[in-house]
Amino acid sequence: MTDPIRIAIASKGNPEALAEGFRTELPEAEVFDDPARIDGGPVPYLVVGKPDAGVIASVPGVELVLSLNAGVEHLLRPGEVPEGLPIVRLVDPAMTEGMSDWCLAVVLSWHRNLAIYRQDTKWTRRTEVLSRDRTVTVLGAGALGSRVARLLALIGFQTRVWSRSGRAVEGAEAFGGPDGLIAATTGADAVVNLLPLTEETRDILNADLFGRMARGGFVASAGRGQHLVDADLIAALDSGQLSAAALDVFRTEPLPASDPLWTHPGVLVTPHVAAPTQAGSAVRIMAENIRRHRRGEPIPELVDRGRGY
Amino acid sequence: MTDPIRIAIASKGNPEALAEGFRTELPEAEVFDDPARIDGGPVPYLVVGKPDAGVIASVPGVELVLSLNAGVEHLLRPGEVPEGLPIVRLVDPAMTEGMSDWCLAVVLSWHRNLAIYRQDTKWTRRTEVLSRDRTVTVLGAGALGSRVARLLALIGFQTRVWSRSGRAVEGAEAFGGPDGLIAATTGADAVVNLLPLTEETRDILNADLFGRMARGGFVASAGRGQHLVDADLIAALDSGQLSAAALDVFRTEPLPASDPLWTHPGVLVTPHVAAPTQAGSAVRIMAENIRRHRRGEPIPELVDRGRGY
Repeated sequence: MTDPIRIAIASKGNPEALAEGFRTELPEAEVFDDPARIDGGPVPYLVVGKPDAGVIASVPGVELVLSLNAGVEHLLRPGEVPEGLPIVRLVDPAMTEGMSDWCLAVVLSWHRNLAIYRQDTKWTRRTEVLSRDRTVTVLGAGALGSRVARLLALIGFQTRVWSRSGRAVEGAEAFGGPDGLIAATTGADAVVNLLPLTEETRDILNADLFGRMARGGFVASAGRGQHLVDADLIAALDSGQLSAAALDVFRTEPLPASDPLWTHPGVLVTPHVAAPTQAGSAVRIMAENIRRHRRGEPIPELVDRGRGY
Repeated sequence: MTDPIRIAIASKGNPEALAEGFRTELPEAEVFDDPARIDGGPVPYLVVGKPDAGVIASVPGVELVLSLNAGVEHLLRPGEVPEGLPIVRLVDPAMTEGMSDWCLAVVLSWHRNLAIYRQDTKWTRRTEVLSRDRTVTVLGAGALGSRVARLLALIGFQTRVWSRSGRAVEGAEAFGGPDGLIAATTGADAVVNLLPLTEETRDILNADLFGRMARGGFVASAGRGQHLVDADLIAALDSGQLSAAALDVFRTEPLPASDPLWTHPGVLVTPHVAAPTQAGSAVRIMAENIRRHRRGEPIPELVDRGRGY
């Protein structure tokens, strides 16, 4: 007889639903939907959203931290997760699809002037540009960025993709490293940010980047709020260097009611809904990672702390 | 020495630019940018937009009518183009791409609630649906419909495509004929109309079709205004059976200022800009069809008058 699998869930989302999911996927598991209610011995598997300080350290005998998010920068702050304890990012095809839907929706909506036509109640025909005549640069070439770049290329856009490593994506021109970032964004009509948040990518959406783009360009960000220098975005919109932006992530969430982004005519705000965690598929993926861990098999999407994601 | 190629252009668009294009593509051609200015003998090649009555009959010795549009229903009215005179539809990859951009933009914008988020200045998180959980039906499986259906399927939607003949499209479920229309639209979350206008397709977007769709569905039409029963659309929107519509074509164009479609909150009006004729690529395609005609080779996209397109 093997030890029961013990799992604790530290999430403010819907820990009861996640716990139910784990009990279905791993009937042999003992699942705690609140770390404060753990009893008995060690709990090797800890599922975390954005836990309060000290919660992770309070769980005894953790061997693997399973993040409910693809971005894990909050877990890499000093003192958060003990050194040497492995963290797994959640890369869920359902979340990837949601993210890709959002990115394609905001790029195409800008590309075809839908917000402008929506406000116009006169028959004003604008010159429409074909996707083949526009360049879109995707920042990030992981599961999210590579899917978005591949689909943008299939739709017809001249597509570039930039990442730290310069990873190739079918149909897109790939760029890597700091020099590659300049080449990838110079003359771009649209930039779509799907990067992880690291010390290298913080504030990457700034006046320099906007200034290299084609005049009247478009910026979409579904990475993290800290990627964007808000004041630089507003200045670029007000000067006409950018024509519009779509943002799903913000430095403070919920975005405060007084924030100028809410009312700027060039900015579409969506409330961090681009790729919501899908409890069903997320649990299946985490359960499979727990099985792999117990069998001593390699686990995909383990976080590299040096790299920052 | 061969006879010079003589071409006349009957278009209210920009006949001078088209004429210049033909002179570049076919340097041996003699080109008239206004049928009223033809002199000398027969003019075998007649390029037409939506000509006034009698213009086509006024051109001597026409052997081939080259339409500037993909839809040719206006050329098939009795007395318009003499029986037996072949008509070529313009199927231009650049127009196809423009149409596909528009269709994807309006479907994705609806799918991700962009118009709702744009109006909301509070942090209101809605439940977002994945493309895999929505069914989109494309009406029409020609160059336009098949491209749009293929891309919708790649993006992730459950995609159906309906046409008279039931032609297959990669990634989509194909339906044909009148019974197939009922099956293809039953339970659909969105319907995208790209059909040619014929006696069979006139008024096809009507209360019956809307009533078969899933509640809260979306309708987009970039075919012809006569495909849509406007009053049925407004009733379906007002009852909540449909949540939104995007229209690029209207029974009267420009859409009159008093038309209720302009101000209905559920309707996005675009002023017949989905797939504007691209003069450069259009001239290249028509010039190639003229060369084929002179060499006695088959010409693609010849209109079948019995079929109506």
